[in-house]
Amino acid sequence: MSALETLIGELARLPGVGRKTAQRLAYHLLQQPRERMTTLAEALVAVGERVHPCAECGQPSEETVCDICRDPRRDASLLCVVEEPSGMAVLERSGAFRGRYIVLGGRLSPLDGIGPDALRIGLLQRRLDQGEVQEVILATNSSLEGEATATYLQQLLAGRGQMKVSRLARGLPVGGELEYVDGVTVTHALTAREAL
Amino acid sequence: MSALETLIGELARLPGVGRKTAQRLAYHLLQQPRERMTTLAEALVAVGERVHPCAECGQPSEETVCDICRDPRRDASLLCVVEEPSGMAVLERSGAFRGRYIVLGGRLSPLDGIGPDALRIGLLQRRLDQGEVQEVILATNSSLEGEATATYLQQLLAGRGQMKVSRLARGLPVGGELEYVDGVTVTHALTAREAL
Repeated sequence: MSALETLIGELARLPGVGRKTAQRLAYHLLQQPRERMTTLAEALVAVGERVHPCAECGQPSEETVCDICRDPRRDASLLCVVEEPSGMAVLERSGAFRGRYIVLGGRLSPLDGIGPDALRIGLLQRRLDQGEVQEVILATNSSLEGEATATYLQQLLAGRGQMKVSRLARGLPVGGELEYVDGVTVTHALTAREAL
Repeated sequence: MSALETLIGELARLPGVGRKTAQRLAYHLLQQPRERMTTLAEALVAVGERVHPCAECGQPSEETVCDICRDPRRDASLLCVVEEPSGMAVLERSGAFRGRYIVLGGRLSPLDGIGPDALRIGLLQRRLDQGEVQEVILATNSSLEGEATATYLQQLLAGRGQMKVSRLARGLPVGGELEYVDGVTVTHALTAREAL
């Protein structure tokens, strides 16, 4: 197999990248100065060598324990559980959350063979055992699997007594138009309507 | 900047890949076995080092002169001019063309500062000077720039006398439904209708 075909094959294995897109990306890279490909290759190698899950929350980090887990200004009484680092990134960008996180690394999905053992529930329990957490915010996705994961965690946490457990509110996107919101979301927004 | 941010930045420079997609790709790679990233990095380096434009047609090749240009069974009297290697790949996959190619490496686009000098018109002229070509098929895209490029080449070739110059037919996609074809294509299909 030629070098170009190997590269196209590797690119086509990325999620959301089909063979045609992989081809387009490879041809694009070919038209760039050679350093572009070297830089990308080096970035891949650097991530592969240096980035590992944080030992306390599971988010990708170059340190054993990540910035957020080491930051003494973060509120240790608030713990937010997300599926993926991307969810954590969204919350961090909002600036609205000053607690800590657990990144599960996925969601329960029995059909794909993903059970509780595949998630970082051990990290969650260890964090709770430290006794500082007073509220756990279940910020899993609002998908079927995300909801199932939240329900599972809720039951797991129920055994721990006084702790508050919450879920991110669901409803209309702020600034969004009613016209473009799906029926299930509208139903939820109506049921969970907020008194003024 | 962290290794992960560098990788996301590099991925986000690819065409059609925004910051969010770049993030998703990077997180996906992080969840794969480490070899995946190394393999992709090596594929990039190999392409960067080994692949160059064919000296005769301009398509990416690991040899100085590509397979197709070296193949004595290809019809040297037929020359097909395409914009990009992807167009050439489509024609090759069809199996309907047994001539040779020139890959221009783009299309005329004055607004982007792409004039004739940025294309491989020198290769085209050198091929024609060899005197074997009897027909040039202008297979540039059916876009505004592709048409302009075809017109430019047609004028350039007009000075060369007896040579036949053609253009890929435009019309309904085979197997496509009339209902989904745009007005300009229908108009062209009607004007260029084929007698039965």
